[in-house]
Amino acid sequence: MRNWLLPEYIEDVLPHDAYRIEKIRRSIMDLLHVHGYQFVMPPLLEYVESLLSGSGADMNLRMFKVVDQLSGRMMGLRADMTPQAARIDAHLLNTGGITRLCYASSVVHTVPFEITRTREPFQVGAELYGHAGIASDLEIQRLVLACLSISGIQSIHLDLGHVQVFRNLIRDAKILPEFEMELYSALQAKDIGSLQELVRTGLDKRLSPEIRAALMLLPELYGDRTVLARAHKYLPAFPQIKEALNQLEHVADALQPHVSKITFDLSDLRGYHYHTGMVFAVYTAGCPAAIALGGRYDEIGKLFGRARPATGFSLDLKELSRLIEVNDYPKGILAPWRAHDDRLAAVVKQLRAEGHIVIVELPGEDRTNNTCCDRKLVLQHDQWKVVPIQNNQ
Amino acid sequence: MRNWLLPEYIEDVLPHDAYRIEKIRRSIMDLLHVHGYQFVMPPLLEYVESLLSGSGADMNLRMFKVVDQLSGRMMGLRADMTPQAARIDAHLLNTGGITRLCYASSVVHTVPFEITRTREPFQVGAELYGHAGIASDLEIQRLVLACLSISGIQSIHLDLGHVQVFRNLIRDAKILPEFEMELYSALQAKDIGSLQELVRTGLDKRLSPEIRAALMLLPELYGDRTVLARAHKYLPAFPQIKEALNQLEHVADALQPHVSKITFDLSDLRGYHYHTGMVFAVYTAGCPAAIALGGRYDEIGKLFGRARPATGFSLDLKELSRLIEVNDYPKGILAPWRAHDDRLAAVVKQLRAEGHIVIVELPGEDRTNNTCCDRKLVLQHDQWKVVPIQNNQ
Repeated sequence: MRNWLLPEYIEDVLPHDAYRIEKIRRSIMDLLHVHGYQFVMPPLLEYVESLLSGSGADMNLRMFKVVDQLSGRMMGLRADMTPQAARIDAHLLNTGGITRLCYASSVVHTVPFEITRTREPFQVGAELYGHAGIASDLEIQRLVLACLSISGIQSIHLDLGHVQVFRNLIRDAKILPEFEMELYSALQAKDIGSLQELVRTGLDKRLSPEIRAALMLLPELYGDRTVLARAHKYLPAFPQIKEALNQLEHVADALQPHVSKITFDLSDLRGYHYHTGMVFAVYTAGCPAAIALGGRYDEIGKLFGRARPATGFSLDLKELSRLIEVNDYPKGILAPWRAHDDRLAAVVKQLRAEGHIVIVELPGEDRTNNTCCDRKLVLQHDQWKVVPIQNNQ
Repeated sequence: MRNWLLPEYIEDVLPHDAYRIEKIRRSIMDLLHVHGYQFVMPPLLEYVESLLSGSGADMNLRMFKVVDQLSGRMMGLRADMTPQAARIDAHLLNTGGITRLCYASSVVHTVPFEITRTREPFQVGAELYGHAGIASDLEIQRLVLACLSISGIQSIHLDLGHVQVFRNLIRDAKILPEFEMELYSALQAKDIGSLQELVRTGLDKRLSPEIRAALMLLPELYGDRTVLARAHKYLPAFPQIKEALNQLEHVADALQPHVSKITFDLSDLRGYHYHTGMVFAVYTAGCPAAIALGGRYDEIGKLFGRARPATGFSLDLKELSRLIEVNDYPKGILAPWRAHDDRLAAVVKQLRAEGHIVIVELPGEDRTNNTCCDRKLVLQHDQWKVVPIQNNQ
């Protein structure tokens, strides 16, 4: 057995990639900091019940579990940091007003989300608690766009949805939860055949003809701004649906100047089991999957004794860093080994203080393979000077 | 059950502490970077066999395990990143010359090392591969002192040991491994009673009287520089022991000016199962446990097909950050909510670019509990100005 082999979809991040990830991590964290988002570091492991708060059965299957030998209880290895941030807001900080939190660390999945993805994404996210209005949705959306822009992502496609459209269509029908889930799955997959089957001959007859027609229309309500006009015209005029459509319009007006493209998708019900309002996904050229996801989830703190309005986003920094043009790892300056040369030591210290990489040669070192340095320190006219390293030297 | 409860010795790091940890993390990583140490991010989970390379049975018990449902094999949650860095050096980078690597991330233990410690330390470390001489030990020791100094640790006590003293005392005796382990445990615990029992009436009679006397002397060889003189005088004059003592002297001479105190401990055999040369521990006022540990471990890459000389250090950033004077979390500037005020937006953007936290008030927000901001933006004579927030406002 080769002990250096790693499990499938698990990988080392080597120096060049780690350098790029660290750079982006810092610029995103600095941006979140000046927007008032406070950095928190929740633990890698906690009790399974806490980690599953507000999430569905899929999250349970995606989470590694271990026995806590101190308590005998099951702990989970976090697969998502959103419930952890909600727990911190609900219980530990417990402020009356608005709380802004952010986080940046690894999460682990038992199986990869998609064939191209890692089982250990590096999740960066921001959450805003305590405000229910559209202004906080907009703040989060502006923030995700700023994070992507500062990371070097050029073309941004924002896709907006709103789970209140579907929720309000079925709200008065009092249908069974299983039927609701089947409808949800068919809509999310834009599986028109199953949807037709469910709506026409389905488990439940309490859906009115108007609602049936509206449900059949949802998968077609995908595309540019004309979607909103069609939705206003053809969906039932429930106040909550009108409100949802107006929110989408408001956000699109505000963000249009800052993105390459805005689309709407009224059957996008991703995270339907915990989302409660507007949802969004961000795409960019060269990546078929969304590079950032987010939305409103007002009930998540309930399990921790304090349901609070909440909206936020998260992204995988490993995936994001792949889309960004390579910053070459900087080359260093080679310094000779001189144990008692205080002047040389002072020069090395000064160069490092200026941000240069200075690598001190070690006695007996074979540096024919040294590709880390492109300059070296040499003594010229009794002064230490930095000169380029010639080839084959 | 209260879902916000965390398992014992597992904790959230809240904004004030996370801010301090992030600051120290960045200064240490920048310092390692300019010294030529390349950042790597090994995975949280990998096959148990890889994670246990070069470590003892205690590491196995300290590691959480999960089944990899893709392969059916056991994976471990890393309890130490040193074997991962060695794997990367041995296999992935595979350079002929010297490799310098560093890492900074969480590790997890099934039980806490000590009663005061967390089960999720934040391990920061640096490793130098491919050089066997004392110059690389010295580079690593200088580096750990610089890391602690840049973090704000004032008083530094360096404790030096060398596993070659004990190894060479027993080398020719061909004693059984069990007896070696018992001797090791008694020495490490400075348990004179057990040591006496083992040496006098022990399992193995092959120890010469000279070696027996030397083993009994080891626990007393603890303290200031006079330890080295006594060791030279009273320990057998094996060349490897002389060499070890000379190395300790050399390092002490070089580092004396940079630390508050240097001591020697010739029975400190921590990590004996993988250390092969000089070892060190760093202490500071206010903390009974070592704040950084390190040493030489030349065989660790063997399991990955490439034994390389290696020396390095690691520390727990969570523990370190507790010892450092609190940097208060910076207060922000509150900006009013004005959706269409481009001049205000430009002022906010400029303040953020200068590094100020600016929090935009949201419509309907109750900010009586807002303690994040101590200044606000107000319109004075048609100009946006930053003014202090008065009490009760």
